[in-house]
Amino acid sequence: MAESSFDVAGIGNAIVDVLAHADDKALVALGLTKGVMTLIDADRSDAIYAGMGPAVECSGGSAANTVAGIAALGGKAAYIGKVKNDQLGSVFRHDMRSQGVTFETKAAIDGTSTARCLIFVTPDAQRTMQTYLGACVELGPDDIDADVVSGAQITYLEGYLWDPPQAKAAFRKAATIAHAAGRKVALSLSDPFCVERHRAEFLELMADHIDILFANEAEITTLYQTDLDNAIRALKNHVGVAALTRGAQGSVVTDGETVVSCSAEPVSAVVDTTGAGDLYAAGFLYGYSQGRDLGTCARLGGICAAEIIGHIGARPAVDLAQMVAHTLSHTV
Amino acid sequence: MAESSFDVAGIGNAIVDVLAHADDKALVALGLTKGVMTLIDADRSDAIYAGMGPAVECSGGSAANTVAGIAALGGKAAYIGKVKNDQLGSVFRHDMRSQGVTFETKAAIDGTSTARCLIFVTPDAQRTMQTYLGACVELGPDDIDADVVSGAQITYLEGYLWDPPQAKAAFRKAATIAHAAGRKVALSLSDPFCVERHRAEFLELMADHIDILFANEAEITTLYQTDLDNAIRALKNHVGVAALTRGAQGSVVTDGETVVSCSAEPVSAVVDTTGAGDLYAAGFLYGYSQGRDLGTCARLGGICAAEIIGHIGARPAVDLAQMVAHTLSHTV
Repeated sequence: MAESSFDVAGIGNAIVDVLAHADDKALVALGLTKGVMTLIDADRSDAIYAGMGPAVECSGGSAANTVAGIAALGGKAAYIGKVKNDQLGSVFRHDMRSQGVTFETKAAIDGTSTARCLIFVTPDAQRTMQTYLGACVELGPDDIDADVVSGAQITYLEGYLWDPPQAKAAFRKAATIAHAAGRKVALSLSDPFCVERHRAEFLELMADHIDILFANEAEITTLYQTDLDNAIRALKNHVGVAALTRGAQGSVVTDGETVVSCSAEPVSAVVDTTGAGDLYAAGFLYGYSQGRDLGTCARLGGICAAEIIGHIGARPAVDLAQMVAHTLSHTV
Repeated sequence: MAESSFDVAGIGNAIVDVLAHADDKALVALGLTKGVMTLIDADRSDAIYAGMGPAVECSGGSAANTVAGIAALGGKAAYIGKVKNDQLGSVFRHDMRSQGVTFETKAAIDGTSTARCLIFVTPDAQRTMQTYLGACVELGPDDIDADVVSGAQITYLEGYLWDPPQAKAAFRKAATIAHAAGRKVALSLSDPFCVERHRAEFLELMADHIDILFANEAEITTLYQTDLDNAIRALKNHVGVAALTRGAQGSVVTDGETVVSCSAEPVSAVVDTTGAGDLYAAGFLYGYSQGRDLGTCARLGGICAAEIIGHIGARPAVDLAQMVAHTLSHTV
């Protein structure tokens, strides 16, 4: 196998997050389902934005957050996703490249604007997300750069990619290229409602294409329609490695042979849980790409997740590489 | 005098802030002068942005931050400033209106984009600002809504308005309308380099038009080219009320008769000083519009400044009204 150009290549919906604080009453008034990601059209996006408080804009997108985290850890990361050539598209591209992520996917010239996700952060630090996919619907197989994918140790995609029409074809192409090059393919289940929407396809995809799976408890139990213990047993036949996040209870990781539990990192104040799963995946995959054992991968995931929930936004605000240096130097 | 529709109407450069962490070395590499606001053109803005780390976008603009703060305190606030009808212009307008600020100035249809300020926040919490004025250069006398200005107890403007070509004419028009309606006019000196650029005009303006002045130590000593004590003496003949901020040493306020010193509010961690002066002005002007004594106005200013320096960005992140409720109920 050729030496890798990248540790991880992420494929996902390229989204700018619009974050505002809100109380539960405001969610009810706007008719929002708390704690999940809901897809909305442009009109609904405008209407909800009009009812949203003062906000800040940060680049987001699940897989984009993950590869930004990997770059912040010192890993070599690439990204494939579709923005429009508008102001928010420029913001998104800037934030990827300035973090050190290779991001060459062509911007859409016509059509709808760069995607945005309206995120309401409630006092319990929970996030409620309304996504307008915009230009993400333009991502298709032609956007898959074979050199990037075949040159990446791991190709990582978000389950949310199953929502826009052509992206699943793009991902299947990427998975085929990756496996032909002897690489690994990872998937995040993204959201329990996303799992509901695409259960059959996700199960088939896992059997055919997925080496590493990320999910939280709600997602994995929704996928298998069973409890966590039974889901872990079911995973054994489905994927090589699975990392299941459990919020304040840490994570459970398995390679089919062994099951390792890892407690959560202490956090002084949980401010905004946006991106917790994405940064867990960043820490885990960075460790995995460096050949670390499962327990160390899980710890790295937990450290990165703990950093991201301490502030608003889903991109790292500190030097993650420095943050994990102690852990890396004290494990094998 | 007619009852007021607004406590404060702010006039300023409508700007979206782009904030990123940076170390002193990065400032040197980009050739930036630390701690001040520098005006740049579109090409230089693109070049500096390309060298900037991952960023977040927040609505900013000095006077805009102040009126957003007044609205957050429960005051009635209006704003006059120029954005373009682009994505960042929509973000700016949304953030004003959703805070409860009346903002009806027409967006520019043609010409350059909505203004942006590239802000580098160093580990000492100091901010270094590079402003591309964009659509702000379109603000002119026709944008001054006489009903808004004559209906506001205080019309507040930022010294930065002297940078774009037509804005000073807009401000002179506003000051004339305000005084004809028996209202007060306030000015912030904005920045020591801004004072250098416009010293003669500021001195003349103060003699003719200004009832309340805001400045920090560097700005007021630059204006009068003397030390703080002599500057305070000079102010006596120049403006009715002056509020001078001194960072960690709090503030000094004077109405020409008395001089009141107010110590700074305790802050657990200073994260980003962007907007400290703007929010001091918000607290002070809110108190002033409620008929509070100078010392209370200064304390309110200090409380609002302390809130804003505890997080990234120059717009309030908490319920300021609740934050000052105790102070307001325990003073006359």
